[in-house]
Amino acid sequence: MFRIVEGPIDVGAVIRAAQRPDCGAISVFVGTTRVDRSGEASVRYLEYEAYRPMADRKLEEIGEEIKRRWDVRHVSIVHRVGRVDPGEPSVVIAVAAPRRGQAFEASRHAIERIKQIVPIWKREVWSDGYVWVGSQVGTRTG
Amino acid sequence: MFRIVEGPIDVGAVIRAAQRPDCGAISVFVGTTRVDRSGEASVRYLEYEAYRPMADRKLEEIGEEIKRRWDVRHVSIVHRVGRVDPGEPSVVIAVAAPRRGQAFEASRHAIERIKQIVPIWKREVWSDGYVWVGSQVGTRTG
Repeated sequence: MFRIVEGPIDVGAVIRAAQRPDCGAISVFVGTTRVDRSGEASVRYLEYEAYRPMADRKLEEIGEEIKRRWDVRHVSIVHRVGRVDPGEPSVVIAVAAPRRGQAFEASRHAIERIKQIVPIWKREVWSDGYVWVGSQVGTRTG
Repeated sequence: MFRIVEGPIDVGAVIRAAQRPDCGAISVFVGTTRVDRSGEASVRYLEYEAYRPMADRKLEEIGEEIKRRWDVRHVSIVHRVGRVDPGEPSVVIAVAAPRRGQAFEASRHAIERIKQIVPIWKREVWSDGYVWVGSQVGTRTG
């Protein structure tokens, strides 16, 4: 399951889809909106934009890369776009493997690769302005 | 949340309880029943037994250990006892941290420590007998 979605991610469903009788471990990574602070200002929410269908293809590519490198039997990556409020999931990765070491390494790799190669950009919306984060270096713009 | 439960674990609820606005990452580990094979025989299900209340205390101890060692803001460990069918979760760990590196390391540590210090024993029920796994070295007994 490799998907870009516009609403809340059903994390439980992503994990249920990863459960397999030939695997003893599922490593799941959930990226959530963190409220950073700077003086009086704080992050109100994040907003994600994807360049599709390139983003979809790159998520699948990461899945294939992982299956070549580790003994994993299932990889799902679901990324949300649009506004994501504090504490809410923006990305969920679930990797199932026969053994836990492989599952942990592969899911860690997946999140690093998403940040490297998937055309998804993040805008931090602060109480006093916003900043694009990712491939562009930005400063807050009130 | 540190719990030993006798029925299915609600994985989605364990993760929702870990979502916090001061954290950007939740690393979740789900241990599931794997069907091993040996010749004609295969694992039919696993059965877990805990020595309580020692097991409950040891789960809390692992949570405290993790909070001392990493910058994590939430740790939950839920372990199921009794019969667990193929692909079903027997243990769920959720660790929330401001940054993902800390979350990954801490959840990996948690599962290793559970196997080291928590008095929970696992019986593999095979099509042709059973074997206790854990602190005792066993062979299948038909």
